[in-house]
Amino acid sequence: MSELKVYFAGSIRGGRKDQAICNQLIEAIKAQGATVLCEHVGYANLTQNGQNQPPDFIHNRDLSWIAEANCAIAEVTNPSLGVGYEIHHALTLGKPVLCLFAKVEDGHSLSAMIAGAPNMYHTLKIFEYTRDIAGMAKAKVAISDFLTGVTS
Amino acid sequence: MSELKVYFAGSIRGGRKDQAICNQLIEAIKAQGATVLCEHVGYANLTQNGQNQPPDFIHNRDLSWIAEANCAIAEVTNPSLGVGYEIHHALTLGKPVLCLFAKVEDGHSLSAMIAGAPNMYHTLKIFEYTRDIAGMAKAKVAISDFLTGVTS
Repeated sequence: MSELKVYFAGSIRGGRKDQAICNQLIEAIKAQGATVLCEHVGYANLTQNGQNQPPDFIHNRDLSWIAEANCAIAEVTNPSLGVGYEIHHALTLGKPVLCLFAKVEDGHSLSAMIAGAPNMYHTLKIFEYTRDIAGMAKAKVAISDFLTGVTS
Repeated sequence: MSELKVYFAGSIRGGRKDQAICNQLIEAIKAQGATVLCEHVGYANLTQNGQNQPPDFIHNRDLSWIAEANCAIAEVTNPSLGVGYEIHHALTLGKPVLCLFAKVEDGHSLSAMIAGAPNMYHTLKIFEYTRDIAGMAKAKVAISDFLTGVTS
């Protein structure tokens, strides 16, 4: 497990609360002994860092990171062009992908393009969680279970 | 040109104003003699229709439509998992893709995963427009120019 590389994708458009959640999920991945490859989500100081790089650099680096990773974990509660693009890239490479979706206040449902993908892409798993203490604990167990099934 | 099939992708999360814009863009595509394949954007009565189908049906149908289409046109002003997923699918199939991005009130910039993609995927074009009369006219010219370059 110590060699496992995990690409983490998420949108922080929802603001600091989402950032804090992503931080917790990233810490849960690291707690499994995995290395996390991720652009800029989950780190309090990174909005600026991401924007210091030209978009083609970010695009090519992130696609390379996904190719290099053993699997990907995506937080898909917020809509995001980049996260959807990255999930499709990971699936076409045959990578195991875990999508974590939280039912939140505004109550929108998960995009059919993600919710409907596991039937075609068998390496995709979707886990619905809630953002309370019990729900976060379950999400962390889902991450642990998912990583146990991934071969480094 | 009359045989051209165009996949149209867009998010209507922004509400009726976005829907009206997508309608105009779809009409501009049809005005070029092309057939538009699209899930549910741009039609006033379709929020319900889309949701009548199970997500795996929608997912598989939309990927098939993209494969069948000669090219894709995506309205990328709003973040959307599905639209990002579909754009990546179209690019991996080598399809010409036109992304239309409007600078709007809240002023967010286009995702780096889309803005940075043309360097790797040469079939992708990005056109920035505004949603006033002059801007919409330019967007329609961009659609016409793009379709002229697509072979049916």
